[in-house]
Amino acid sequence: MNGAEKLLETLVASGVEVCFANPGTSEMQLVSAIGSNSGMRAVLCLFEGVVSGAADGYARMRDKPALTLLHVGSGFSNSMANQHNAKRAHSPIVNVVGDHATYHLQYDAPLTSDIPGHAKLVSDWVKVSLSADDLAASGAEAVAAAMQSPGKIATLVAPANHAWEEAAEETLAAEAPPVTAVEDKQVIAAAQALASGKPSALLLGGKALREESLAVAGRISKATGARVLCETFAARLQRGAGRFPVERLQYFSEQVSGQLEGLQQIILVGAAAPVSFFAYPGKKSWLAPEGCEVIEFATAGHDLQRSLEALARQLSADEAAEVAAIAPPFPAPAGALTPVAIGQCLTLLMPEHAIVSDEAATCGLGLFPVTENAPPHDWLMLTGGAIGQGLPVSLGAAIACPDRKVIALQADGSAMYTVQALWTMARENTDVTVVIMNNRSYAILNIELARVGAGEANAKTLSMLDLSRPDLDWVALAESMGVPASRAHTAEEFHRQFANAMEGIGPCLIEAMVDQSFQM
Amino acid sequence: MNGAEKLLETLVASGVEVCFANPGTSEMQLVSAIGSNSGMRAVLCLFEGVVSGAADGYARMRDKPALTLLHVGSGFSNSMANQHNAKRAHSPIVNVVGDHATYHLQYDAPLTSDIPGHAKLVSDWVKVSLSADDLAASGAEAVAAAMQSPGKIATLVAPANHAWEEAAEETLAAEAPPVTAVEDKQVIAAAQALASGKPSALLLGGKALREESLAVAGRISKATGARVLCETFAARLQRGAGRFPVERLQYFSEQVSGQLEGLQQIILVGAAAPVSFFAYPGKKSWLAPEGCEVIEFATAGHDLQRSLEALARQLSADEAAEVAAIAPPFPAPAGALTPVAIGQCLTLLMPEHAIVSDEAATCGLGLFPVTENAPPHDWLMLTGGAIGQGLPVSLGAAIACPDRKVIALQADGSAMYTVQALWTMARENTDVTVVIMNNRSYAILNIELARVGAGEANAKTLSMLDLSRPDLDWVALAESMGVPASRAHTAEEFHRQFANAMEGIGPCLIEAMVDQSFQM
Repeated sequence: MNGAEKLLETLVASGVEVCFANPGTSEMQLVSAIGSNSGMRAVLCLFEGVVSGAADGYARMRDKPALTLLHVGSGFSNSMANQHNAKRAHSPIVNVVGDHATYHLQYDAPLTSDIPGHAKLVSDWVKVSLSADDLAASGAEAVAAAMQSPGKIATLVAPANHAWEEAAEETLAAEAPPVTAVEDKQVIAAAQALASGKPSALLLGGKALREESLAVAGRISKATGARVLCETFAARLQRGAGRFPVERLQYFSEQVSGQLEGLQQIILVGAAAPVSFFAYPGKKSWLAPEGCEVIEFATAGHDLQRSLEALARQLSADEAAEVAAIAPPFPAPAGALTPVAIGQCLTLLMPEHAIVSDEAATCGLGLFPVTENAPPHDWLMLTGGAIGQGLPVSLGAAIACPDRKVIALQADGSAMYTVQALWTMARENTDVTVVIMNNRSYAILNIELARVGAGEANAKTLSMLDLSRPDLDWVALAESMGVPASRAHTAEEFHRQFANAMEGIGPCLIEAMVDQSFQM
Repeated sequence: MNGAEKLLETLVASGVEVCFANPGTSEMQLVSAIGSNSGMRAVLCLFEGVVSGAADGYARMRDKPALTLLHVGSGFSNSMANQHNAKRAHSPIVNVVGDHATYHLQYDAPLTSDIPGHAKLVSDWVKVSLSADDLAASGAEAVAAAMQSPGKIATLVAPANHAWEEAAEETLAAEAPPVTAVEDKQVIAAAQALASGKPSALLLGGKALREESLAVAGRISKATGARVLCETFAARLQRGAGRFPVERLQYFSEQVSGQLEGLQQIILVGAAAPVSFFAYPGKKSWLAPEGCEVIEFATAGHDLQRSLEALARQLSADEAAEVAAIAPPFPAPAGALTPVAIGQCLTLLMPEHAIVSDEAATCGLGLFPVTENAPPHDWLMLTGGAIGQGLPVSLGAAIACPDRKVIALQADGSAMYTVQALWTMARENTDVTVVIMNNRSYAILNIELARVGAGEANAKTLSMLDLSRPDLDWVALAESMGVPASRAHTAEEFHRQFANAMEGIGPCLIEAMVDQSFQM
């Protein structure tokens, strides 16, 4: 058995089941080993940003790592933007990056690069294997590192000769490391703060946004009057009918400041303190009100469910809070195709336990509140701000959960960064409905241009934020990669096409020609 | 005048004329400053890998830097694969990467990243500006750094507040640093080696592959009998009728070993010693024959023209060597659409001074020799091995040389990495004819799989190297981004479509359905 085969055996024994791959010559033995190991599914992606984004989507839905297979430093660099998003999402990922044979590096062949230097920028754990035997052992270490709560990026560099040389030693599979709840003294301190009568909010992030944790947070809210907030960009928020509804922090800093006004205590539960996404001249970066105390109750790495339960016990918060009702029947939207109309169609038509991958940018912020009373569903967001996440994450979520409908709400500008994801959706026949919000611009940047006080914009300036001339034809683009597609100009057309998509199975794309006169 | 406006003023005064841009919120003042400065052309690209590849193509043709405008670490990481290729091409590039305002970094907002850490992996020069005043001064430094011979990657990180704060100080434009020829003692040593009678070759790289230097190398060859070789992947080789023809080193290591057999001296002129692109079990990495002396006459950073002239003078090598003749008339190819047939069409139809961007991978290696007697043209190659270079480089070359026809010979798999380049070709109405070599696979990897001895490949293994299921429809893909397209199944169809493309002006794409039975 060579090092590559032994590595695959160890990864599979450690519970890794899927490999998103974009290999090159230095990974040929690894490709061959994946091909020979029936425990590892191989999913080819035509760009590395799709690989890493798909691994992120898979991890968010399965709470365990997928494997990525990447080619040297340049391949890894193509994956980095979505590795960054995955890191911010606390998604466990095991990257295996092939490198030149160890003895070949001295010759500085064209693809020679500092792979560990690349990897450490977006990884929590980085190692270069030491030998063919060490390759498999390092693979087990990588899985264990990735499974460290709340989820880590582990990157293993595999020199080609370690893959092709014989590996003799037995290798133990990785075991998931334990997860701890917060200590009693923190529970007592947080309970005292919440019992103080000061206007307070819990700010939830990470796994505190799963259904069970939300229910506990709801009980605490009911008992103490504390508000329950959700970070602006969550990895995975379980919401919709039957679930305790959290108040999501908005995007623009002045909106957030408004939401937080009057609070004297913010208690962090797996979330970071609220800060502005970007700085703006004359605007605040730190968004908690002046004098408001920010208390870190639990980090994302704690067992948030158990931590919240301990807090609820301490507060004798036993009474369940009200959950979101299912939306009463309402007529399908008509007329202009606005984000609100799209949200109404989702509420009316999405099946139970749909997964929504939201990289709809300006449009997504508008349609999110409209879907609060939709059937129960998971909402996955742009955690790290590096655009090009949405299509790959929806692909990975669909591979992770083949029995659930996936809906990708996708801004046109962002979709272009990792548009190659459409091809893999077609190849794997994933059940993803992509909705392209076509407003023919980087709409967010037109807003930001005004907000940063960059002065009156001339035509040349605006041309750098504009996606027209030529208009992208998303129907042709999807069909060129094997994804059936249609175009909707009105709410009626969108409703009909989206209804068809929800009834069918398999990938499709709807190009939603969003009303240009719509303003956030 | 704010820091951004002052920076633009300085860059324009330093001779920078074109900006390839993919901006975000932290670059809004820079976008506005570019919009207001009539000396800087703005070219929007829909992915950062297109930005950096286009800047590389521009630099190869103009021997001076374009500006790139990139958004924080994630945007930069998307550009890195083609920065790597540009660095290996010795292309001068000035990257300006926007970052959060300096005072905002402490809050670790989602897009916070170690931009200098990213930049140093692929840059020769990295700086973070210190103030609004320093931003413009640093811009001049960046241009001077980029213009260091033979061309460097200079990356300037621009915190958003340095762009929006007032800049008062006058800033001097950059001046191109001097370039030196090799020292006399090296000229004498190389001349003695060449005069020794030992079987010798000059191995040319970098700017030694321009017409004038090739002519001098030809004289040296004529006088001494030395062979004249060219590195496998050159940034820019001037070739075709009327030029001294060099012998290009082939791709696979055993082929190169065959080419070099019998040589006792290899004299490097701006090239690296020949090494295998990848390592393979049981095959050589260092490719010079045993006992062959490798003499570094001149590095890529030397003035290679003057250095070669000094060497020719020392050898009294005055007699011009024979140059390539223009191909005599021959009938248009018929039947199967092979790489050779495509090369024949190029030879018959390409106009004088066409620019060929070759990322045709396996197909490109086959058609290159066929075009030796085409009209004089420039051939741009995949210098760093990071695929996704070809379309962006052709875009940048077309922006650099609007009066010259550009032909992008492009493998299908590689094209997908930076396919967004097609949109900018359409928007800027660049005169690029893209030829997609559609063989529906990563063909090179099927060859490499056998070469690395990875054993018998099963269907699952081969599926990771295969671009079918679904087939990519390149005609639809091009048209979706505004590029007119057609498909050719036979040599006759290709000849007709390529003839039309050569007669017209503006972007177009031909999907060449390459004969699958063709073997390299």
